Amino acid sequence: MTPGKFITFEGGEGSGKSTQARLLAERLRGLGHDVVVTREPGGTPFAEQVRQLLLAPDTAPHGPVSEALMFYAARADHLEKVIRPALAAGRWVICDRFSDSTDVYQSHAGGLDRAMFDMLEHAIVAATRPSLTLVIDIDARLGQERATARRGSASRGSDSAAADAYERRDIVYHETLRRGFLAIAEAEPQRCLVIDGAKPIDNVAAAVWAGVSERFGADTGAAAPRTD
Amino acid sequence: MTPGKFITFEGGEGSGKSTQARLLAERLRGLGHDVVVTREPGGTPFAEQVRQLLLAPDTAPHGPVSEALMFYAARADHLEKVIRPALAAGRWVICDRFSDSTDVYQSHAGGLDRAMFDMLEHAIVAATRPSLTLVIDIDARLGQERATARRGSASRGSDSAAADAYERRDIVYHETLRRGFLAIAEAEPQRCLVIDGAKPIDNVAAAVWAGVSERFGADTGAAAPRTD
Repeated sequence: MTPGKFITFEGGEGSGKSTQARLLAERLRGLGHDVVVTREPGGTPFAEQVRQLLLAPDTAPHGPVSEALMFYAARADHLEKVIRPALAAGRWVICDRFSDSTDVYQSHAGGLDRAMFDMLEHAIVAATRPSLTLVIDIDARLGQERATARRGSASRGSDSAAADAYERRDIVYHETLRRGFLAIAEAEPQRCLVIDGAKPIDNVAAAVWAGVSERFGADTGAAAPRTD
Repeated sequence: MTPGKFITFEGGEGSGKSTQARLLAERLRGLGHDVVVTREPGGTPFAEQVRQLLLAPDTAPHGPVSEALMFYAARADHLEKVIRPALAAGRWVICDRFSDSTDVYQSHAGGLDRAMFDMLEHAIVAATRPSLTLVIDIDARLGQERATARRGSASRGSDSAAADAYERRDIVYHETLRRGFLAIAEAEPQRCLVIDGAKPIDNVAAAVWAGVSERFGADTGAAAPRTD
């Protein structure tokens, strides 16, 4: 059995990465692939409970070390119950945020000691690293405008509106996050592909697909579409 | 300024360790000492939120790795905000459960990899190890009888009754926990003192005080009680 492919989407708020994750999954499914779409923090019942605790507006103050440990507690559950079994079964796994977000939010922008991040990543994620990470890059101010517009529109469920503690932070902070994602992509060009998220959705999706096709070649099945 | 003293109480449910922690604090305060009594998991607003999540009856299934990471997320906050500042200010800190409980519940009895526990302990607790750990030892069946009687009596607040997922496990499990605590005490006799928790409260308190006096000597002030 062909081992599955693990693809992550990373980027700041309003970059459109969740939409792109969904569009990529649809395209792969259209080619006959078995695709799991998931997200972090979250992806399992326990990890979603951790997410709720971390994002709730009444969560008590805590530092980046505690936060990183919580994210890795959720990630360990997500890897064990969802990601590793899916990859072992030969499925494609598309994850909206993964370790790079912890690296950027807690380490680059939050002051978490580099050695602590590396230690957790090595201990918990170990060999289950993404084959491809699509960094959807967007100007911090545009990202915040999009995120604000989204919050103003239809209900987004229990994570919505004022509940999301992250999205309220200021532009300077979001610029720091953006530089963090770009620094990771620059340091790991064999894994990461930076895509301009300011363009229209279809253009971004085309760039995502070009990157996926190039990375996985014939495994995408794009060269031999189903005729049934 | 004399650096503070860090004392932890460990043991199974129904061992009486919380009562003994309180009695020791009262005795030390009576000798003029500045004493902080705290507990784990908990001890800060964030750590108490983590405690609530872990002990709630509707918490989703998760493994010992996730659980240990959550406990250390709470512990990192507790150390930073409560324990280290108190010790730096020369206060006595008495903590009801600490790292040994993670070692016993998640590692000895839960299957957490030994290296993972050691890594977390080294990274998060580092040099802030207790000077003295009082292991209140009790037969598992007696401990469970006491814990059951306590649950049946007056309200214990939000942690009470059926809410405590740990106290419902069976006697075999509690025997495993007991052996875990005794193994730690045997491995670290310079730090740990095992006290028979089956005796009446006053006898246990006397044994605790004998241990504290012997370990800290003149620092307890017992040899020179205040005359004011």
